[in-house]
Amino acid sequence: MAIAAVALGGNALIHPKERGTAEKQISRVNNTIALLKPLSERFSLVLTHGNGPQVGNLLLQQETAKDIVPPMPLDTLDAMTQGQLGYWIQQAVENVLRKNAATIITRVLVDEKDPAFEKPTKPIGPYYREKVFSNMVKEPEGWRRVVPSPKPVEIIDIEEIASLVGRGFVVIACGGGGIPVAKEKDDFIGIEAVVDKDYSTAKLASQLKADLLVFLTDVPTVYRNYGKRNQNPLYRLNRRDAQALLDAGEFKEGSMKPKIEASISFLVEGGKQVIITTVEQIGDALKGSAGTIIE
Amino acid sequence: MAIAAVALGGNALIHPKERGTAEKQISRVNNTIALLKPLSERFSLVLTHGNGPQVGNLLLQQETAKDIVPPMPLDTLDAMTQGQLGYWIQQAVENVLRKNAATIITRVLVDEKDPAFEKPTKPIGPYYREKVFSNMVKEPEGWRRVVPSPKPVEIIDIEEIASLVGRGFVVIACGGGGIPVAKEKDDFIGIEAVVDKDYSTAKLASQLKADLLVFLTDVPTVYRNYGKRNQNPLYRLNRRDAQALLDAGEFKEGSMKPKIEASISFLVEGGKQVIITTVEQIGDALKGSAGTIIE
Repeated sequence: MAIAAVALGGNALIHPKERGTAEKQISRVNNTIALLKPLSERFSLVLTHGNGPQVGNLLLQQETAKDIVPPMPLDTLDAMTQGQLGYWIQQAVENVLRKNAATIITRVLVDEKDPAFEKPTKPIGPYYREKVFSNMVKEPEGWRRVVPSPKPVEIIDIEEIASLVGRGFVVIACGGGGIPVAKEKDDFIGIEAVVDKDYSTAKLASQLKADLLVFLTDVPTVYRNYGKRNQNPLYRLNRRDAQALLDAGEFKEGSMKPKIEASISFLVEGGKQVIITTVEQIGDALKGSAGTIIE
Repeated sequence: MAIAAVALGGNALIHPKERGTAEKQISRVNNTIALLKPLSERFSLVLTHGNGPQVGNLLLQQETAKDIVPPMPLDTLDAMTQGQLGYWIQQAVENVLRKNAATIITRVLVDEKDPAFEKPTKPIGPYYREKVFSNMVKEPEGWRRVVPSPKPVEIIDIEEIASLVGRGFVVIACGGGGIPVAKEKDDFIGIEAVVDKDYSTAKLASQLKADLLVFLTDVPTVYRNYGKRNQNPLYRLNRRDAQALLDAGEFKEGSMKPKIEASISFLVEGGKQVIITTVEQIGDALKGSAGTIIE
């Protein structure tokens, strides 16, 4: 069966602005996974997921208790949320889709010379009224920490992921973009950074030689002039169209831009098709009647 | 290559009484894994680990921040620590032993009719001066929560673990005894409990048809009259000796008793050998000159 790599993002796992009890988050995960049925019938699935709200909660808990418990660094927090969300997603796949699932703790190789380390851009955790950490920037909502977001060089744990996909498992991998790890001499060293989940998922899809890459997000399609009065959905794009729109600055940083960039690199590296849509519309998008398809 | 299932417990991962920064814990994990070299040269390894101090820290953080972040239930906390410790152990195996490693989030099936649910016995988290939760018992050090500790019926995720062991990976699995999950109709449901890691490791070893089961703990051997003036190390035991000593009440609840019970059940289910010793003495124990060997 052909392989599809599917990135679960945005509202697929937690209601926006809601911190979320386990019960509510698990219920949302179950609903999301149920909507993947048409995909699961046509493809071997590898599922990746975001972890922003969950890492944000851990950061808040760590800070509140910092006088009694040593806080963990970002790479370890990512590993923890991979366990947390992996467990929930795995249970949902087995209970709802009735397929065997496996969760693989996934490290992503980053380059310590990546220019991202000189210019942190990825906001993490809660907003603050004041600048309480040195790595903070002011946003309209308040002060927020920013950390480097280096590009994924490769998915280190690709071999076990590929092996289990080959054995028929729905594999949950690369949570939160993967645990950032650099190579120092011959050793892997954890790095305090956040790898963009869209780039990681595209890299994972390429390394797995997946046919299809799916970004499940908050909008039903990619738009031209997004958020403006003349906003215009884009249903079909080829790689050159996508590149031209990207070059024209059509897509928003940290939102649609990384998805389009990741889509292009997946197609350049041999992938056949990318779908960008919501979880609710993925069934129709597979039939060609919804979503944005890039080929 | 024959398979060995190795339970890393006690001081192998965190210094006793120390809460532990990530740096200190990772350094300890590296030292422990280095001592497994003789084992790794003779066996395909599956590593399990405790998570008591790590779950204790998460419980403390959750309580401190409970007004701003919803606390997660115990099964989810176990999944989180499987990610955390699995990541650290995996890095150590690759950096120190130079073997490919994979971390599998592992669920363990428990029976909701297990009598353990009527009589919680497993202490978790910090001590308190007062009874602040309903499920607390008084210990000499203070009040402490206790939760049910049901027996593992089977390792649910055995198939992916076996598959990766067969492919040559050192697999980290069953952390914290595994995530307790019950079956309700056809669905897996997470359960607020803690499965004893010794029983889970023995069950995992049996299901994998491992030849060797190793418990790495805080004492170099099993003792008769442990802690008394006439304390006496036991170097070699057969299954019947072990059962007789167990029946005579020689072994302490929550400490050596579950290890001996787990050893017996592993041998009954077809296992060949059990070693109980410290991480420092495992090399000598393999040569037959240290530790307790049960056959």
